[in-house]
Amino acid sequence: MTEHLTDGRPVPTYDDVVAAARRIAGHAHRTPVLSSRIIDEQLGARVLFKCENLQRAGAFKFRGAFNALSRFTPGQRAAGVVAFSSGNHAQAVALAARLLGIPATIVMPHDAPAAKVAATRGYGGRIVRYDRYTEDREAIGRALAEEHGLTLVPSYDHPDVLAGQGTAAKELFEEAGPLDALFVPLGGGGLLSGSLLAARALAPDCVLHGVEPEAGDDVRRSLEEGRIVHIDTPKTIADGAQTQHVGELPFAILRRERPIVLTATDDELAAEMRAFATYLKLVVEPTGCLGLAAARARAEDLRGRRIGVIVTGGNVDLDRYADLLREP
Amino acid sequence: MTEHLTDGRPVPTYDDVVAAARRIAGHAHRTPVLSSRIIDEQLGARVLFKCENLQRAGAFKFRGAFNALSRFTPGQRAAGVVAFSSGNHAQAVALAARLLGIPATIVMPHDAPAAKVAATRGYGGRIVRYDRYTEDREAIGRALAEEHGLTLVPSYDHPDVLAGQGTAAKELFEEAGPLDALFVPLGGGGLLSGSLLAARALAPDCVLHGVEPEAGDDVRRSLEEGRIVHIDTPKTIADGAQTQHVGELPFAILRRERPIVLTATDDELAAEMRAFATYLKLVVEPTGCLGLAAARARAEDLRGRRIGVIVTGGNVDLDRYADLLREP
Repeated sequence: MTEHLTDGRPVPTYDDVVAAARRIAGHAHRTPVLSSRIIDEQLGARVLFKCENLQRAGAFKFRGAFNALSRFTPGQRAAGVVAFSSGNHAQAVALAARLLGIPATIVMPHDAPAAKVAATRGYGGRIVRYDRYTEDREAIGRALAEEHGLTLVPSYDHPDVLAGQGTAAKELFEEAGPLDALFVPLGGGGLLSGSLLAARALAPDCVLHGVEPEAGDDVRRSLEEGRIVHIDTPKTIADGAQTQHVGELPFAILRRERPIVLTATDDELAAEMRAFATYLKLVVEPTGCLGLAAARARAEDLRGRRIGVIVTGGNVDLDRYADLLREP
Repeated sequence: MTEHLTDGRPVPTYDDVVAAARRIAGHAHRTPVLSSRIIDEQLGARVLFKCENLQRAGAFKFRGAFNALSRFTPGQRAAGVVAFSSGNHAQAVALAARLLGIPATIVMPHDAPAAKVAATRGYGGRIVRYDRYTEDREAIGRALAEEHGLTLVPSYDHPDVLAGQGTAAKELFEEAGPLDALFVPLGGGGLLSGSLLAARALAPDCVLHGVEPEAGDDVRRSLEEGRIVHIDTPKTIADGAQTQHVGELPFAILRRERPIVLTATDDELAAEMRAFATYLKLVVEPTGCLGLAAARARAEDLRGRRIGVIVTGGNVDLDRYADLLREP
């Protein structure tokens, strides 16, 4: 039986994740699962990394965006799509739109990483800028949608986006064998809620952990209070998790499935960026380090276990990246 | 019919590569083949990267080392192995020895990257240092071998090492489909000659290119002159290709198969390190960038073709890497 929000929207199920996996097959990469003997030794556990930084457009967001856009009607395709995003969703929508022949308008903050802006433009997206700390990107996106008849694809509070993001964990569970725990970066909740749907079907004994930046622990508080807590835009290097609140659809799944919610500091994220470069030879953006940072902090509880970690993306300005690679 | 050197050593054939592939299966990673839409557009060609920076111990060298050490007799295993190397072969032998329970002694230059020294030590190898510009590492290695009854495993002039290195190209040809050209970093010639054996059997129409650092183009000259040219240790950021001469076994294969030999400058290598980080989210060491640098310089001749590039390794000190990521 399908669950519904009070506004009537159906809450996605694992069947939607399976349908999304079919739609994105051959378009999204089936990203590799990598590991490091040294990180295994450091944590005293077997750690398997699902490398979505190696996904198209450099982040897991392509999964949800392509799934959503591939369901557009011919009329929606002709009119175009609009999205607002701090970066990775923007690039994902721009690339998916280009592949599907759909015009894309992207609303991005003025302080979005230059590499993300350039990539979005490179994918052919039209860019509209706004101020992250004073303007409301949702209002800007909605106004553009109404004015030009565009279809708005939000970055996490959308059933097709949420179901698409669940395909990353689905692939990991299928490939990695039994996992005792899975660590998932947590901003708007799309990836974590999609992962929970996949886990319930494929790995019911796996304990899921969502990991927020310490500066913005609104989801932990939301689950404690049983309602969606709104906060000011948190100041953190994890720009992919600078969300003011979790989405309603993700929250419906989080409230039901009760994942453990943890946090990580910016210093911990920078240390894991160095670990990824040193031991896995991977460029990982700060948000992509949330999972490993939290797993390392909990290493004592995880001794001898098999752990999955979703590495969400690798889009970071090179100068900024070079700064963060230096020991503090 | 097996070809022999004048000293009686048999020159490896593709059968040896196949045997090596069987021996390393389940021990070496079958590394992913990755691509970037943006690099494809930049070069006007389809470019497939065989990512040996994601190999165990961070470089293709593990293939040859494990293949060689797995053929030790019980007596050789008990006495131990000695290797001399600027870094990646050292780590590879140390890790392979550890996995096979063989004591390892590694002769490394004083100026080897600290990360490579630390990793070699971390794998349990005993380290002996020497001066790259004044001392003869081969003599030091041979003296240690004689004194302690150790078996010397050279980094490229050895049939089992050479055959093991050929497994990377073998996997690439099997996975990537037909390739018009393959670009392979070139120092002592082990990887290139192994790749030539694999190409002859699996991709006879593929044109092979070896790429040396411009500062040490001894192999180009050796093929022109029909004899192995010795040079002073070249000063280049490509520390994995700072060889003074090509090996005799590799040269026998190079002379027969006649690959195209190209060079790349340090500035070109640094630019490709930035490209790998930006578009493929991969940490690649300078030597690992030789193939892409040469392919980019030849892009006009390669328009519309399918190209393979072997990315040899990702072992680079983080501070040095951060420096090289900055625009000049």
